[in-house]
Amino acid sequence: MTSPKAREEAVLEAVRKRRERVNEAIPEELPIGRPERLYEASRYLLDAGGKRLRPTVLLTTGEALADVPPLEGDYREFPTLNRGEPGETPATIDIMNAAVSVEVIQSFTLIHDDIMDDDDLRRGVPAVHKAYDLETAILAGDTLYSKAFEIMLDAGADPQRTVEALDILATTCTKICEGQSLDVTFEEREDVSPEEYLEMVEQKTAVLYAASACLPAVLMGADDETVDALYGYGLDVGCAFQIQDDVLDLTVPSEKLGKQRGSDLVENKQTLITVHAREQGVDVENLIDTTDVDAVTEAEIDEAVAKLEEAGSIGYANEMARDLVDRGKNRLEVLPDNEARDLLFEIADYLIERGY
Amino acid sequence: MTSPKAREEAVLEAVRKRRERVNEAIPEELPIGRPERLYEASRYLLDAGGKRLRPTVLLTTGEALADVPPLEGDYREFPTLNRGEPGETPATIDIMNAAVSVEVIQSFTLIHDDIMDDDDLRRGVPAVHKAYDLETAILAGDTLYSKAFEIMLDAGADPQRTVEALDILATTCTKICEGQSLDVTFEEREDVSPEEYLEMVEQKTAVLYAASACLPAVLMGADDETVDALYGYGLDVGCAFQIQDDVLDLTVPSEKLGKQRGSDLVENKQTLITVHAREQGVDVENLIDTTDVDAVTEAEIDEAVAKLEEAGSIGYANEMARDLVDRGKNRLEVLPDNEARDLLFEIADYLIERGY
Repeated sequence: MTSPKAREEAVLEAVRKRRERVNEAIPEELPIGRPERLYEASRYLLDAGGKRLRPTVLLTTGEALADVPPLEGDYREFPTLNRGEPGETPATIDIMNAAVSVEVIQSFTLIHDDIMDDDDLRRGVPAVHKAYDLETAILAGDTLYSKAFEIMLDAGADPQRTVEALDILATTCTKICEGQSLDVTFEEREDVSPEEYLEMVEQKTAVLYAASACLPAVLMGADDETVDALYGYGLDVGCAFQIQDDVLDLTVPSEKLGKQRGSDLVENKQTLITVHAREQGVDVENLIDTTDVDAVTEAEIDEAVAKLEEAGSIGYANEMARDLVDRGKNRLEVLPDNEARDLLFEIADYLIERGY
Repeated sequence: MTSPKAREEAVLEAVRKRRERVNEAIPEELPIGRPERLYEASRYLLDAGGKRLRPTVLLTTGEALADVPPLEGDYREFPTLNRGEPGETPATIDIMNAAVSVEVIQSFTLIHDDIMDDDDLRRGVPAVHKAYDLETAILAGDTLYSKAFEIMLDAGADPQRTVEALDILATTCTKICEGQSLDVTFEEREDVSPEEYLEMVEQKTAVLYAASACLPAVLMGADDETVDALYGYGLDVGCAFQIQDDVLDLTVPSEKLGKQRGSDLVENKQTLITVHAREQGVDVENLIDTTDVDAVTEAEIDEAVAKLEEAGSIGYANEMARDLVDRGKNRLEVLPDNEARDLLFEIADYLIERGY
């Protein structure tokens, strides 16, 4: 058995290699057209970086399904499950287009979210509405939205499969909006249950992982059982990813996080940890006196975290994330036993074992 | 030959009858789901009114193509061009879904445009970001965006035709964003040519008319020649519609317009009239001294309009709109000679002959 550290490094290397391919494909699928300022603003966040976790999940799921050695296939002419037999699914499709499409959707949601939260920074650079202006940021997001559909349409799958993929993309976008809207309403409520919180996370965050995991199956001509299982894998690990994000906000030193540790608590943001703690009788709203992240001390955060630990809330969140990852991994039994499937197991573990 | 007044009334009656059907279908296709506030905000402008010109063009084009008597067919089970013969196109499709989809796109663009222009009023009610808030308005627009795709996907056409329809919808949305972005950059330029202005209008406004006119042909299984001709009809009359809007802003009394006459001039908004006048040597930026619509007098507007008339700019715009409408009408020769086709002629005339 390899060490956790070695395993994490193997995952990061696998992600890095797919990220490079995705980074090459983004300017191909989304060139700077006219009007230049609009397309520059649309590309701004995409070019600023990002782990490309969702496209990595998508490409790796494709590799597992096609049963090809990781990174050896050409994502632009990728073998489908119809190996030259007569049928509607062509022998190869362009799954890189699908990968870029989900990353473009992710980028659109970040641009609009940053406007809504009036956040200044994203990926270490100014948010698009700060680097440009509000008008351009709204339009850049709207442009990416329709471009994601255009890019998915060009994956070259057969029409029936393309229609199914676009249906998944559209309903995913609707759910992301619904989840974001729920998140906003939660800010004014003190009675959010863990179940409601998880429903919000599923819609706001996990559905795009679910779409990423199942889209290769849809486009490549897999059966419904496989599509559903992969959707479930993405949903489970996507939820776990968000829960772990909430835990890391409390447990990782500020300098490593790149922002004030405990900022969710200071800003009274709901997380699975706080909704659990409130049910345990913790006075969550008054754990930290200030609501100003610049005024809070490390000692105040330490004290608040200690109370959340005492209430069992951090343990509860850790356990929930672990259970979700285990459930997600079990769903991968529908895939052939190969190196890419192993990587999907590792990615699931990485999402909750990552340091930040 | 009937009088212009009688013709206008016949068009308005035809539009009204289709509008009633569209108004019934909107809540069916876009019910108030959860979160309620998000869906209420998404429906707010749609429920506030609107002429439904784009869905009317779409439904009427469908009627002309199917060669059925206007308003007698069931838009939900509408005959395609495949009359029961074996083939991929089913015998009936739901063209009302396509009609609602384009109106939903139109509503999404209005919500986001009002944020960008920080306009207070729309259709006589507060803009969505005023009636709700900025966050909710951005999200409501984003929700309508993906819902338009979902609704179009449910029209029940064969997969190949559905893929083509979604491609048209996606590229139309991209062009609307590009046009809106061009419009913003024009505000800071004093050397916009009539050709550039028309290109902007085509992208920002006319492409959605073009999509509305050609989508029934795509979904019902028409040939490429018919699809292209109908797209051209929509593009021509959509451009004419916008040019006429610019003319009406100068020529219709404020109380009939529902806003200050000449407000485009006061706010230094580019129109086909001002770009033409500038080419004729008119000092367009100084036609009106104030940039405050509340401070301008009717006499100042009269004087400015007289100068624009003298330069031939209003005549130029009128002639351009008329030429576009004539060209658009000629394209309708691909359609069978029937009552619905006549109505498409009348709608084209109405768009430039309407009083406001």
